[in-house]
Amino acid sequence: AVVEGTHFRPEWQSPEQIGARASLVNLSDIAAMGGRPLYGLASVGAPPSYPARDLEALHRGIVRALARHGASLVGGNLCAADRLFVSLVLVGEPTGRPARRGGAQPGHFLFVTGTVGDAALGLRLLQSRKRLASRSARALVRRFVSPTPRLEAGRALVGAGLVSAMIDVSDGLLRDVGHLCEASGVDAVVLERFVPRSAAYRALAGEDLTAALCGGEDYELVFTVAPAKVPRLGRLVHRLNCRVTFIGRVVPGRGRVWLQDRAGRLARPRQMGYDHFAKANRPKRAASSP
Amino acid sequence: AVVEGTHFRPEWQSPEQIGARASLVNLSDIAAMGGRPLYGLASVGAPPSYPARDLEALHRGIVRALARHGASLVGGNLCAADRLFVSLVLVGEPTGRPARRGGAQPGHFLFVTGTVGDAALGLRLLQSRKRLASRSARALVRRFVSPTPRLEAGRALVGAGLVSAMIDVSDGLLRDVGHLCEASGVDAVVLERFVPRSAAYRALAGEDLTAALCGGEDYELVFTVAPAKVPRLGRLVHRLNCRVTFIGRVVPGRGRVWLQDRAGRLARPRQMGYDHFAKANRPKRAASSP
Repeated sequence: AVVEGTHFRPEWQSPEQIGARASLVNLSDIAAMGGRPLYGLASVGAPPSYPARDLEALHRGIVRALARHGASLVGGNLCAADRLFVSLVLVGEPTGRPARRGGAQPGHFLFVTGTVGDAALGLRLLQSRKRLASRSARALVRRFVSPTPRLEAGRALVGAGLVSAMIDVSDGLLRDVGHLCEASGVDAVVLERFVPRSAAYRALAGEDLTAALCGGEDYELVFTVAPAKVPRLGRLVHRLNCRVTFIGRVVPGRGRVWLQDRAGRLARPRQMGYDHFAKANRPKRAASSP
Repeated sequence: AVVEGTHFRPEWQSPEQIGARASLVNLSDIAAMGGRPLYGLASVGAPPSYPARDLEALHRGIVRALARHGASLVGGNLCAADRLFVSLVLVGEPTGRPARRGGAQPGHFLFVTGTVGDAALGLRLLQSRKRLASRSARALVRRFVSPTPRLEAGRALVGAGLVSAMIDVSDGLLRDVGHLCEASGVDAVVLERFVPRSAAYRALAGEDLTAALCGGEDYELVFTVAPAKVPRLGRLVHRLNCRVTFIGRVVPGRGRVWLQDRAGRLARPRQMGYDHFAKANRPKRAASSP
């Protein structure tokens, strides 16, 4: 679901972009299992004052974003609500054995597609209401407004039988690696210096890793691979349409994430990522370092 | 979808009842096609201040209502929103050829299950904030808070091949008969004196038919039957767990509904039923009488 006030403000995006984004974040969930999207059902709530033309544009945004990835909108519901929301259900089919969050084992390597943190910086730019003068700024905003679901990469990775666990980055890299660790009953060490950032990210944030580690909504894929399969992954990556970066390893544990800084020091992150229900969305502090 | 402020107010229902009702109104859509419900996906938006205990009760309400009718909740999504909403997708399977809205033909007879108008009176009682002293008042409120989806009746009618078109009464009897007429490309005449009302309805509203004709959310089934099949319907009704009442007939036309009063006079209704997006929800006046 995407909800006005929680996930977007009307002034950030056109109605068509709101509809498209609702589809893209759902498509990303199917990408994270290596599936093929088939059809969607949209439940839309809109204020009675919402213009019919905007409602049509929103609908068009959903339909076109699904169509671009081979899926169709087959039905839905429209009702009145104080604030706009779009709740989309997307049905897909597995291509091979679906990737889950729970298959990571100690010794497996951790990878991520694309770059992380762009969407969070883009969101910050939208919130700051500054004019987006630079090319970098526009690129970052575009990453937030119009994310790319990694459907081809997900299918290729699952089809080749390479991943032991996979999840998409919606709440932030560390938090989503944490979800994967919890489901797998392992810990993970993320190596700060390998976390992939775009040129636009570096132009705006320099070497500050906060958005890359904790910023959500990138919709990249994080996945684990057994050491014996890493050479095959290397060969596959050349055929993928996106970058794949080694960012850490799985270690024995019980669902926690560790950060290793450039000096080799290991610590629990002081901040994890986005929690819808956190009090005032404050950064949370970990209990102690190792 | 059920949305706080649009479909309910928190003080009217417990969280479990809100969850149950979201399921029941969805089950009714499957009843209206004569289907069998299988599994559901719930998308819930809740304010961060919403108590976890209430969220659990809401979830329990969904799960139990689905289970009572043989369906399961298999997944969903939870996100923050200003006001509570529950958007449920329910997947069912056909039992026989599914009933649609578009099969009514001139000469077919129009029937409705149960009684209509109770839920609208119950809602009015809740809105009036009066103490519900009488048994009638409590019965009417119960019809609004906890509607009965007519799954068995829907399946029996479709299974016996009796209905040419069917819809559930969610927006009001006249409005939903209108939906059926539009889809079928016919007109319908509803005979006021036959419209079934409960004893509780008569205790509160006397002979005023407004709620029965225009009040929504009863979740009864309205359906059409070809004259040759009416005797078989008569035999089936004895085995159904609900009343079935003849209320009118289908005539040639193009999607309009007519009312015939006790004196035999035919007129377009001055008021139809509930339209989420009507300006201030005013009763709409028809252009002219026939």
